[in-house]
Amino acid sequence: MLEPEAILRLEADRVVMLDQRRLPAEEVELECRSAADVAAAIRELAVRGAPAIGVAAAYAYALAASRGDDLDETDRVLRSSRPTAVNLGWALDRMRDDPTAEHARRIHRDEVERCRAMSAHAARLFAPGTRALTHCNAGGLATGGYGSAVGALIAAHERGLLEHVWVDETRPLLQGARLTAWELEQAGVPATVITDGAAASFMAAGEIDCLVTGADRIAANGDTANKIGTYSIAVLARHHGLPLWVVAPSSTLDLATHDGSGIPIEERDPTEVTARFPARNPAFDVTPAELVSAIVTEGGVHRAPYEQSLAGAVLAA
Amino acid sequence: MLEPEAILRLEADRVVMLDQRRLPAEEVELECRSAADVAAAIRELAVRGAPAIGVAAAYAYALAASRGDDLDETDRVLRSSRPTAVNLGWALDRMRDDPTAEHARRIHRDEVERCRAMSAHAARLFAPGTRALTHCNAGGLATGGYGSAVGALIAAHERGLLEHVWVDETRPLLQGARLTAWELEQAGVPATVITDGAAASFMAAGEIDCLVTGADRIAANGDTANKIGTYSIAVLARHHGLPLWVVAPSSTLDLATHDGSGIPIEERDPTEVTARFPARNPAFDVTPAELVSAIVTEGGVHRAPYEQSLAGAVLAA
Repeated sequence: MLEPEAILRLEADRVVMLDQRRLPAEEVELECRSAADVAAAIRELAVRGAPAIGVAAAYAYALAASRGDDLDETDRVLRSSRPTAVNLGWALDRMRDDPTAEHARRIHRDEVERCRAMSAHAARLFAPGTRALTHCNAGGLATGGYGSAVGALIAAHERGLLEHVWVDETRPLLQGARLTAWELEQAGVPATVITDGAAASFMAAGEIDCLVTGADRIAANGDTANKIGTYSIAVLARHHGLPLWVVAPSSTLDLATHDGSGIPIEERDPTEVTARFPARNPAFDVTPAELVSAIVTEGGVHRAPYEQSLAGAVLAA
Repeated sequence: MLEPEAILRLEADRVVMLDQRRLPAEEVELECRSAADVAAAIRELAVRGAPAIGVAAAYAYALAASRGDDLDETDRVLRSSRPTAVNLGWALDRMRDDPTAEHARRIHRDEVERCRAMSAHAARLFAPGTRALTHCNAGGLATGGYGSAVGALIAAHERGLLEHVWVDETRPLLQGARLTAWELEQAGVPATVITDGAAASFMAAGEIDCLVTGADRIAANGDTANKIGTYSIAVLARHHGLPLWVVAPSSTLDLATHDGSGIPIEERDPTEVTARFPARNPAFDVTPAELVSAIVTEGGVHRAPYEQSLAGAVLAA
């Protein structure tokens, strides 16, 4: 499994990250010498995943502070780099009070610790022989280490409860086929990639027992924004009587947003889908809380009504 | 719109087809000098779409007859080239009685005529301002001319009833993004490509009014095999209260197969999905009749119970 420092780290004059755009073909590091460089890396998905971009922003803010940059401008540039994940603002809010390198590193360590805690909670949801479906990449790459949904899958596998993982390839950028399959292979977890449109057939054939995903932002009522296609498999899971477990750190909770209608959905360049014909490319969707069986944070397993259970999750953090 | 002869034709010593693997980047013809060449073209998707591979097999059979080839062996090679579409066997059954070039050309002309008839029937299902979603390619390329689902969309557009078409890109081979978007552009129908996983979001946003697809095989009870991902959007349509209309010629009906459990599902090379990690690649899925709002053939619009209405469809053919 990748060490947190191999995914993201702060050095004296730069933020260094594993360039996720080039995985799994090449393991190449990208060096960012300024907060603007980090913002570009976030925008262009060299680093992606809600908790990981929060950590990257924290490191960028500490770097800017050490250089004597304008921190209001630094905050603005980083905060606006991507709109949907709430962790970006969460990390920057924390860095304002203490813009040191040590604080940024503590945010990183804490996120990885949260992943280990929530993965242990989530593993208790698995019965022996579970065959899980996951979507996009909620692994160590997405969280700065260990992973949320992938962390839960690894924890369930270590406990002998996981038989197989089906991995949605996750168009248009194939984070499932490129990143999740790679992380699961490194962790020794048996996994098979399928196209996003094939998941329903495997559900109908009785080959999937549960869905496990991460989240980019969870509203107070439990509505969950995550990679485009998550809502699709959530509806399909309901039709087939399967549970959907969302695994995410409390830094992903946005209790100031009442429900999913208040979550901004990033729309990316249509050329990510097709270069020749008109296309639309929303990067996220919102799964209504009604379709979410459990939300697992480092505080434990939360069930509906989420207005109450998630409020407790933030206090426990 | 492409002329039938531009898609598929029989010449004195060869079957000539537009190579669909290279569209839309290049319009290149592939020349097949034997039935084995045509079987390879079918297997490798140079020609695809249930009615079109039936026509290609008819031309190949006529070519083999004119060359004095062993027609039992010819039948075997062609019939086994792809398993799911029933039109392949349907066309070969007909060619046995009259293996002439004229008969093969009549099968081709008849398929295109069926497309025009069923498209006119299907257009009556559209209300003014309809925004439709389609999956894969059920256009002229797939039928040898005019198209089934795409024919219906073009007919609805000509009648001023169609506002917009959303086109699933249709992984892994992108028939929607490559072929359907290209055919709709040529026909002047406004269309936008989306990833397969995004369709649910557009349904939830109220931007889709109906689903229109073709079929590769329809069992006697109405269960419909079509490109992988069709079952997925059928379940999503039901969840969002949208109708699914299947448009297909009677050559796609397989009344000898009672229900979808008897339809063989082709599994293609996993490398079509991903080259680096294990993958599964079923090429089709089966949508239960319960999720199909109407099946439109050249005989008209058929509703459940399909056991009765489809039996009439074959008699009318």
